[in-house]
Amino acid sequence: MKTLNIASIPGDGVGKEIMPEAIRVLEKVAQVHGGLQFKFEEFPYSCDYYLKHGAMMPEDGMDRLSQFDSVFLGAVGDASKVPDHISLWGLLLKIRQEFQQEINIRPAKLLKGINSKLADPKDFDIVVVRENSEGEYSSIGGRIFHDDNEIAIQNNVFSKRATKQAMNIAFDLASKRKGLVTSATKSNGIFHAMPFWDEIFEEISAKHPNIKSGSKHIDALAAYFITHPHELDVVVGSNLFGDILSDVGAAIMGSIGVAPSANLNLNGKYPSMFEPVHGSAPDIVGKGIANPIGQIWTAKMLLEFNGEANIAEHLLKVIEAVTADGYQTPDLGGKYKMTEVTDEIINRLGQ
Amino acid sequence: MKTLNIASIPGDGVGKEIMPEAIRVLEKVAQVHGGLQFKFEEFPYSCDYYLKHGAMMPEDGMDRLSQFDSVFLGAVGDASKVPDHISLWGLLLKIRQEFQQEINIRPAKLLKGINSKLADPKDFDIVVVRENSEGEYSSIGGRIFHDDNEIAIQNNVFSKRATKQAMNIAFDLASKRKGLVTSATKSNGIFHAMPFWDEIFEEISAKHPNIKSGSKHIDALAAYFITHPHELDVVVGSNLFGDILSDVGAAIMGSIGVAPSANLNLNGKYPSMFEPVHGSAPDIVGKGIANPIGQIWTAKMLLEFNGEANIAEHLLKVIEAVTADGYQTPDLGGKYKMTEVTDEIINRLGQ
Ligand SMILES: CC(C)[C@H](C(=O)O)[C@@H](O)C(=O)O
Ligand SMILES: CC(C)[C@H](C(=O)O)[C@@H](O)C(=O)O
Repeated sequence: MKTLNIASIPGDGVGKEIMPEAIRVLEKVAQVHGGLQFKFEEFPYSCDYYLKHGAMMPEDGMDRLSQFDSVFLGAVGDASKVPDHISLWGLLLKIRQEFQQEINIRPAKLLKGINSKLADPKDFDIVVVRENSEGEYSSIGGRIFHDDNEIAIQNNVFSKRATKQAMNIAFDLASKRKGLVTSATKSNGIFHAMPFWDEIFEEISAKHPNIKSGSKHIDALAAYFITHPHELDVVVGSNLFGDILSDVGAAIMGSIGVAPSANLNLNGKYPSMFEPVHGSAPDIVGKGIANPIGQIWTAKMLLEFNGEANIAEHLLKVIEAVTADGYQTPDLGGKYKMTEVTDEIINRLGQ
Repeated sequence: MKTLNIASIPGDGVGKEIMPEAIRVLEKVAQVHGGLQFKFEEFPYSCDYYLKHGAMMPEDGMDRLSQFDSVFLGAVGDASKVPDHISLWGLLLKIRQEFQQEINIRPAKLLKGINSKLADPKDFDIVVVRENSEGEYSSIGGRIFHDDNEIAIQNNVFSKRATKQAMNIAFDLASKRKGLVTSATKSNGIFHAMPFWDEIFEEISAKHPNIKSGSKHIDALAAYFITHPHELDVVVGSNLFGDILSDVGAAIMGSIGVAPSANLNLNGKYPSMFEPVHGSAPDIVGKGIANPIGQIWTAKMLLEFNGEANIAEHLLKVIEAVTADGYQTPDLGGKYKMTEVTDEIINRLGQ
């Protein structure tokens, strides 16, 4: 019997609602497939935790999380309680950076049955590979001068090592898909970082003569997601550009409530973390209408990157059969409740 | 007789094709309205100029341009000839920064008759106010270390003065429109610059109790352009965020070939510059199918910010009557050539 030890962090807002749904699904997956079991331990780290304890997690929080095979996260952040830069740098970004989760994989794929004004399921199937540890998300910088003379300086730090790594992963992935990598750049405007990024991309491209590759400036590429998604396959971007493109992708997927993501630690020293793309959505908390699919599709990625690719594929097929048959929450234009969608996935897993 | 002295820079690619079209329109506008005349002088600054002279403009280029009432620009940049960061920092960004064109106004509005998968004309009418002189577009930074240890550092510089100015302009504009300002932030991820941006936004918001205001993170906001455009009015963003949002907006306008922009100098020391949002589109050069509307709508903004608001409004009405009647280039799904669309605008200006 293989056991996966999972630290679950429901977090804030709808995170607390969708986490139990995804855990119900994973328990069912284990039951159906046999030979696999989950041990979950829940951690209450969140904005509420901050309000009580003055920190997003205790001193030994990272140590404790590091004992698990994976971290499974709901949604973090609620600016009405704690300023976003405090809550995110104290939890989500802290885990990504300290656990060296240097790669974020974000599929942007339209599931059957979901009505998107913008794309057909056959035309919209992109994976965003996001550098996840540096770039624009750096804590270096500060402020100087007073009153109206005040300025803030933010230092973006791009390393060749992490940049290459993200690009190599993108080329690997493309070799198993349609064989095309598009790099998100902005070398026409961002004077130092982006020409550096482009040079590395050219170097890596040259090593992969069988993969087609090209660059687009982030502004044009975001527009391209809308106008020409069928001409994209794997897209590689910096921390910020990957973030923006994956949200644009999620909007085209019909709702940001659907989109999954995996923060991967590649050196084996720390766990990876799996979390949906959406936020804590305080406006719909308590209504029972949060879309569980983002978290459940994320559970699929957790299986995939814990060596269970087949089981993961089966779960995604079931999710898509359920959306195809119209079991959808209101964010997708459907009339089903969160638990009804989950129930339908669990029913079909058993069939 | 009022005379406007205009420096025209057709630039690269389709810039050279659409510039004469917009000038034909402006000549007709002057003829129809009387009391106004244009004097155009053309400057060949472009990537071709660079290939001949080793610079995007001569030493005295900025001095010469500074003599004009406005600069009218087509499109700059062609990476097959000159690397983008050289061509743009040597011309477009040089003019924006040295002529202190600190504000970029970019209407994102769907014209009647244009088929957008995403919006109805009544629902899509946003103005992006972009800080245009600093932020992520800074030439400060560099590289250190060698081989795989190399890193690049890019310093983003945000001043309270320029940030406040962009926000004040956004609130002013909103007071003449639907009374709503949305700030593009990313204070959850960008540790120093964006909390600074948010604080200033709160300060300016508090001074405008009659204007509704709120902030959204850039990733969510880009998605919001797609899913909830009718809930946006004026959007204020940093140099990079304004750039990205205006391209997403242009995609929703049906084609990036339609979108106009104005780079405004506010202190009266230098000319403002007017340029469409689209690039030089080398792939369609010579086919006669470039969309002239971006440049002609930009001519409308040139009129507006040179004190001719009424004439400008008339021109926009005529442009919209022409798109409404289906005179559209192939990028919009139409069958008309560039010159046919322009001819129709000119005909109707005379009626
Ligand atoms: C060409 C480039 C430097 C420019 C920018 O990023 O400002 C363009 O994208 C624009 O929107 O005007
Ligand atoms: C919450 C925020 C810091 C985060 C990010 O920007 O990475 C989120 O937008 C995401 O996409 O995971």
